[in-house]
Amino acid sequence: MNKLVTDITKTISGVINQKEFTPLHAPIFEGNEIKYVTDCIESNFVSSVGEYVNRLEEMLVDYTGAKYAVVTVNGTAALHVCLILAGVEQDDEVLMPALTFIATANAVSYIGATPHFVDVEYQSLGVDAKKLDSYLSQITQIKDGQCFNKKSGKRIKAIVPMHSFGHPVDMDELNNVAKKYNIVVVEDAAESLGSFYKDKHTGNHSLLAAISFNGNKIITTGGGGAILTNDEKLAKMAKHITTTAKIPHKWEFKHDMIGFNYRMPALNAALGVAQMEQLDKFVQHKRKLAQRYADAFKSIEGVKFFTEPKYGKSNYWLNTLILDEDKEALRDELLETTNSQNIMTRPIWTLMNKLEMFKNAPKMDLSVSESLEKRVINIPSGAWL
Amino acid sequence: MNKLVTDITKTISGVINQKEFTPLHAPIFEGNEIKYVTDCIESNFVSSVGEYVNRLEEMLVDYTGAKYAVVTVNGTAALHVCLILAGVEQDDEVLMPALTFIATANAVSYIGATPHFVDVEYQSLGVDAKKLDSYLSQITQIKDGQCFNKKSGKRIKAIVPMHSFGHPVDMDELNNVAKKYNIVVVEDAAESLGSFYKDKHTGNHSLLAAISFNGNKIITTGGGGAILTNDEKLAKMAKHITTTAKIPHKWEFKHDMIGFNYRMPALNAALGVAQMEQLDKFVQHKRKLAQRYADAFKSIEGVKFFTEPKYGKSNYWLNTLILDEDKEALRDELLETTNSQNIMTRPIWTLMNKLEMFKNAPKMDLSVSESLEKRVINIPSGAWL
Repeated sequence: MNKLVTDITKTISGVINQKEFTPLHAPIFEGNEIKYVTDCIESNFVSSVGEYVNRLEEMLVDYTGAKYAVVTVNGTAALHVCLILAGVEQDDEVLMPALTFIATANAVSYIGATPHFVDVEYQSLGVDAKKLDSYLSQITQIKDGQCFNKKSGKRIKAIVPMHSFGHPVDMDELNNVAKKYNIVVVEDAAESLGSFYKDKHTGNHSLLAAISFNGNKIITTGGGGAILTNDEKLAKMAKHITTTAKIPHKWEFKHDMIGFNYRMPALNAALGVAQMEQLDKFVQHKRKLAQRYADAFKSIEGVKFFTEPKYGKSNYWLNTLILDEDKEALRDELLETTNSQNIMTRPIWTLMNKLEMFKNAPKMDLSVSESLEKRVINIPSGAWL
Repeated sequence: MNKLVTDITKTISGVINQKEFTPLHAPIFEGNEIKYVTDCIESNFVSSVGEYVNRLEEMLVDYTGAKYAVVTVNGTAALHVCLILAGVEQDDEVLMPALTFIATANAVSYIGATPHFVDVEYQSLGVDAKKLDSYLSQITQIKDGQCFNKKSGKRIKAIVPMHSFGHPVDMDELNNVAKKYNIVVVEDAAESLGSFYKDKHTGNHSLLAAISFNGNKIITTGGGGAILTNDEKLAKMAKHITTTAKIPHKWEFKHDMIGFNYRMPALNAALGVAQMEQLDKFVQHKRKLAQRYADAFKSIEGVKFFTEPKYGKSNYWLNTLILDEDKEALRDELLETTNSQNIMTRPIWTLMNKLEMFKNAPKMDLSVSESLEKRVINIPSGAWL
């Protein structure tokens, strides 16, 4: 076995100090989860109307500092609605990193729009604003205040930066570029609840943002998500469109647009309220674990433990190793070795542009994403470790 | 006050015998709900993988007799996937009753297809197969084995009969017509869990069917739904497409088509398992309540209590009064009077063709739907009554 693979495996093992199988992540229910869910069932309001839905939204507003939060059935639904509210229409293009989870690209596809893949940088593993600027200056033209891809002729309506593994993208830089080209920014904050860019929580640096509470996230509602915004009209519209766009009336069933059944049920919100109460603790534990990994990996040559960018504070949702470029051939051996020793590890997502359904989608030079795809490995990150 | 309005209000009041506000419907949690949901949280598997998801699917298979069940985040999602699997594509037309809940039309819209509204009949309040046959014989032509609307030039790919308030549509008649025109049938069984057409449960008389477990349905999972089918390939594809179309692999993240985050979380499935255990009891109670209403309304002239068609057995999800044609002007007074006396009542849905976003959609003569819209009122239907 390769020495570096052995060293990395031993180092992870030394940090986590577990005898049994250690997953990449798992939820922790040691607060009021059972109490609130029981109370929710006893209240008889388990569906889309219920006190816990309101409470979870209030807690998200308090925690993130966003003016409005609208909870949804999952993060994909939240992203879908954000894109609609951002004005994305059929046949538009939406910029996003090639290095992202499939939901970002799927949500764009639901509208009949096309994902347009851009590269990332090493500081945040998120969108590289400088490289984007240079690319857009070559391929776009502004007509009537809208940005068009000169090659495809399609409008580029929005960009969806993703805070990979919880690490905040440099939003000021990105917003400057987006403003220059008149492109709306929607943050994919699915992984970054508990992460801050400068002094403000992620999801607060764009028109709209989507959060996920899937089972593998820092807190979970079973399945769930949320839309964040500081715009009152958009918040109202988000509630409207996620509840079948029904017009309030004492008894009539009238709907004024094509809406969705996307509101989070109160049963899931009850779990979420209990989880939110523990979010600070989870973030603290995860940041401590990251510090222990960082210390342990300092002395290992050939691999780097990824740490948060200087301008922000990460929730370290998933901890990340990046093999040196000349060690990329070891990735699969490292995955085999760790997983066979009950230490769950995973590569990063297959780049979106390599998936069959997106292989013809427009893209820029993706050399950094391609290099990271070969070298990134996520390692156990549970807050209990 | 009009005498008929008074008589109807008194009659409802006499049957339900409640002192406090009586909703149209509400869930009943008097089984293992808290036990199973607690167990689910303690198992740590609250998300899309979990034993309760499998158990709920097995119980649905046992109860409905369908070979496969795939549970989803809600009934709208189930319908959306059914339509995709039925082969509905952008720019197709999908036939459905004008008298249905908005979800049926929305699900069609998500694909970029157009709802095409057809009329209903008095026996089931569902699609009128004979009238449909006559209409299709005039407006369609078959090209290469596919049915086309001669006027719009669009393909008519599918029809979505809806079992209104739980009352089964005459599926044999409808299937004969659909077969003649080579149109795929997808049952909207959102309201009809516990309802049978002839000897087989609704949802078993077509290629695919969608069930809803929304908070107002006969059983609830908070929010939830299910796809039923007897086709193994479609069932597998339903699981695949509802779980982001991820290809199984020991660690790779690859997806082979545009998929959805539509799988029901285990937390909701745990509630559903407890509810399924009580479904037979709920159906019995609701059928008894309907019988009491039927008896009480026998002597009232000017209104009819709607009873199940002879060929089937209804779950009587929502009990229904139909005012005589010459009494339709009393509908709003009846709604005002009952609701002001703490008896919740509702009109039927606004016909789909009258909603802004569907007003230009193709439609046939809808005279029966239009007449029913003016005369139908749903009355309290909770299984505890």
